Amino acid sequence: MACYIQKFGGTSVGSIERIQHVARLIEKTYREGHQLVVVLSAMSGETDRLSTMAREVSQDQDDRELDVLLSSGERVTIALMAMMLKSLGVNARSFTGRQVGIVTDGAHTKARVSRVDTQRVRAALQDGVVPIVAGFQGMNEASDVTTLGRGGSDLTAVALAAALKADTCFIYTDVDGIYTADPNMVPSARKLEKISYEEMLELASLGAKVLQTRSVELAAKYQVPMEVRSSFQDGSGTRVVQEDTDMEQVLVSGITGDRDQAKVTVVGVPDQPGIAAKMFVAIAEAAINVDMIIQNVSHDSLTDISFTVPRGDLKSAMSLVRDLAKEVGARTVEVNEAIAKVSLVGVGMRSHSGVAARMFATLSRDGINIMMISTSEIKISCVVEEKYMELAVRGLHQEFELDKPPGV
Amino acid sequence: MACYIQKFGGTSVGSIERIQHVARLIEKTYREGHQLVVVLSAMSGETDRLSTMAREVSQDQDDRELDVLLSSGERVTIALMAMMLKSLGVNARSFTGRQVGIVTDGAHTKARVSRVDTQRVRAALQDGVVPIVAGFQGMNEASDVTTLGRGGSDLTAVALAAALKADTCFIYTDVDGIYTADPNMVPSARKLEKISYEEMLELASLGAKVLQTRSVELAAKYQVPMEVRSSFQDGSGTRVVQEDTDMEQVLVSGITGDRDQAKVTVVGVPDQPGIAAKMFVAIAEAAINVDMIIQNVSHDSLTDISFTVPRGDLKSAMSLVRDLAKEVGARTVEVNEAIAKVSLVGVGMRSHSGVAARMFATLSRDGINIMMISTSEIKISCVVEEKYMELAVRGLHQEFELDKPPGV
Repeated sequence: MACYIQKFGGTSVGSIERIQHVARLIEKTYREGHQLVVVLSAMSGETDRLSTMAREVSQDQDDRELDVLLSSGERVTIALMAMMLKSLGVNARSFTGRQVGIVTDGAHTKARVSRVDTQRVRAALQDGVVPIVAGFQGMNEASDVTTLGRGGSDLTAVALAAALKADTCFIYTDVDGIYTADPNMVPSARKLEKISYEEMLELASLGAKVLQTRSVELAAKYQVPMEVRSSFQDGSGTRVVQEDTDMEQVLVSGITGDRDQAKVTVVGVPDQPGIAAKMFVAIAEAAINVDMIIQNVSHDSLTDISFTVPRGDLKSAMSLVRDLAKEVGARTVEVNEAIAKVSLVGVGMRSHSGVAARMFATLSRDGINIMMISTSEIKISCVVEEKYMELAVRGLHQEFELDKPPGV
Repeated sequence: MACYIQKFGGTSVGSIERIQHVARLIEKTYREGHQLVVVLSAMSGETDRLSTMAREVSQDQDDRELDVLLSSGERVTIALMAMMLKSLGVNARSFTGRQVGIVTDGAHTKARVSRVDTQRVRAALQDGVVPIVAGFQGMNEASDVTTLGRGGSDLTAVALAAALKADTCFIYTDVDGIYTADPNMVPSARKLEKISYEEMLELASLGAKVLQTRSVELAAKYQVPMEVRSSFQDGSGTRVVQEDTDMEQVLVSGITGDRDQAKVTVVGVPDQPGIAAKMFVAIAEAAINVDMIIQNVSHDSLTDISFTVPRGDLKSAMSLVRDLAKEVGARTVEVNEAIAKVSLVGVGMRSHSGVAARMFATLSRDGINIMMISTSEIKISCVVEEKYMELAVRGLHQEFELDKPPGV
């Protein structure tokens, strides 16, 4: 008898029909005799509907109340699913975040799980009950409801899998796995059978929306095997597992293109020690995520500093940077939103050199200018003009032969 | 400094605009410097929307899960209201049923409040916070959410008022008070300035939907002064208070007409001891509320037994009664749904005789046949043909001069 977590996202429970369909998937696993914990998101669209009402009511966001509001959506899905399953003869019972023992810190709307009190859910499993758990939510030490941020249901699922030492944490969604590239961009993109935690982390932070970044971090930390599957079609998906020697044979596992980028350039900064540091400390304190940074060679004791931020953070970054630029006596601040980041990810890069060179050559061959570069042990990213993004991704997909299964 | 409870029903918080309007009402009381606890229902229509989804998912009602589902609606309104109030500069904070300490028994969908743990709400009031409380919900000893039945938010408000010894429990709704009769039926109906708990209880159980019966019972028990007001227009409403000598001067306080009635007659029942008892015990065990009962004089050792039930219970009552009728050898069972119950309510009846006689004479004068009669200390009800209901109510309203203020 195995112990599984099955997490279903918003589109998988987006209507009564979808809930009925998912109930039958759960029933199947239950009939096979496994221990099973189900984690659900709110119906798709519900979180947006509630957020819109919150904005209509007040311009000032109140995080504690926003959590009370947003956490109502999952209560609806867990109750409906438990009802549906019981009518199918499955011994199901709903659990809110509090009831399943997800204890978090006090950071409303983006709380971190501090521990999982599994007593109640373990007792339910002992009794043969299938707990139907509200994802995305927990309770802080003050007994207030908290939420775990966008995609937080994945985190709930992995946290429960780690606490219960589950055999696999299945993430059911509207795609059937992780692909070598976005199939909408690259028709020959291929579904990966498995991928390492580290590669998945890079892909997630590069904008692959299939899995929430923090959930993959947690899975890696506790060695929780994950599998991304489709709730819309049968068949296995992509396993997210610990890296093995097999994987190192593959040079590049996936390619991403990310439009959610904007480039800010502070022009004519006096080239004195500490000025760049001052600027980036202030930006970090405003919780704005700076991705890449470039500082040009100095001319006449003046230099240019460029960096990229997510487009959503651009406005707040700019108001900050304009003030700072004035303060340090920089000449002006320029913005470019028409950029995109193209990235190669693969653990094989650790043991194979020359990947970067091949990437640059491929882009150059297609006449694409590289504006910024950043690398990690298993990733190379280039910022290019936005209009070239798809061309770049397709060219690289072909160059690294990602349409062909590994070892062929 | 007084301590007030303000409860707003579903229509009062039925849209963003209504929530904004109610927030300003709350702000006004807050600025006057009173201690204030606000209790909210779900947005109007929300409970029906959720109930419909539950029925679509499963035919078998699962009460525990239904409570998880239905209790989500109030979380939305309390969060939105707290946000709105904070943006008006009011120090508001949302409280779920659990957080405000409403502890109930385990009877899901119709739980009874067993105690109110006021520690947290008292601390909030001490800190100058306005608690915005989710009505209709509580938590049982197993730490599961429970709901208090239709109109349960009134019960939350009165329970808090009793526990906090509040000066008045205001029930804001879409009507501006309790009337001598339904103004839709009797244009000259007059708003009562005050009414006793007992009269209100009779009116509520006779189908006046303004206040939930159990909340009036609780208010009477703990002597909580209530006031029914409109959230749509300014001005005072109707106070529900302890009976005073003043009230006894008034013969009749209110008249109701109730169409939600059906009459069942078991024809040709053998007139033996225990047969009626057997029937009504079985009906009571099925939790069907029998209102009036008549047993005819026996002919040839056979008798007819008639009783009324709410129309919603008719189907289940009939299947039960048909079986019982067969069992005891009764001839047949007849149903009449075209009936209505007309009632006079007033504490003055205790000290004045002749009210019943005047009622019967008035109905007779208008050619209305009385099918059944029942009385209590402060109420007389007659069952009449449904088509005569409005005529009866109007005639009685005039006969007892309810359009004129008392003492004039």
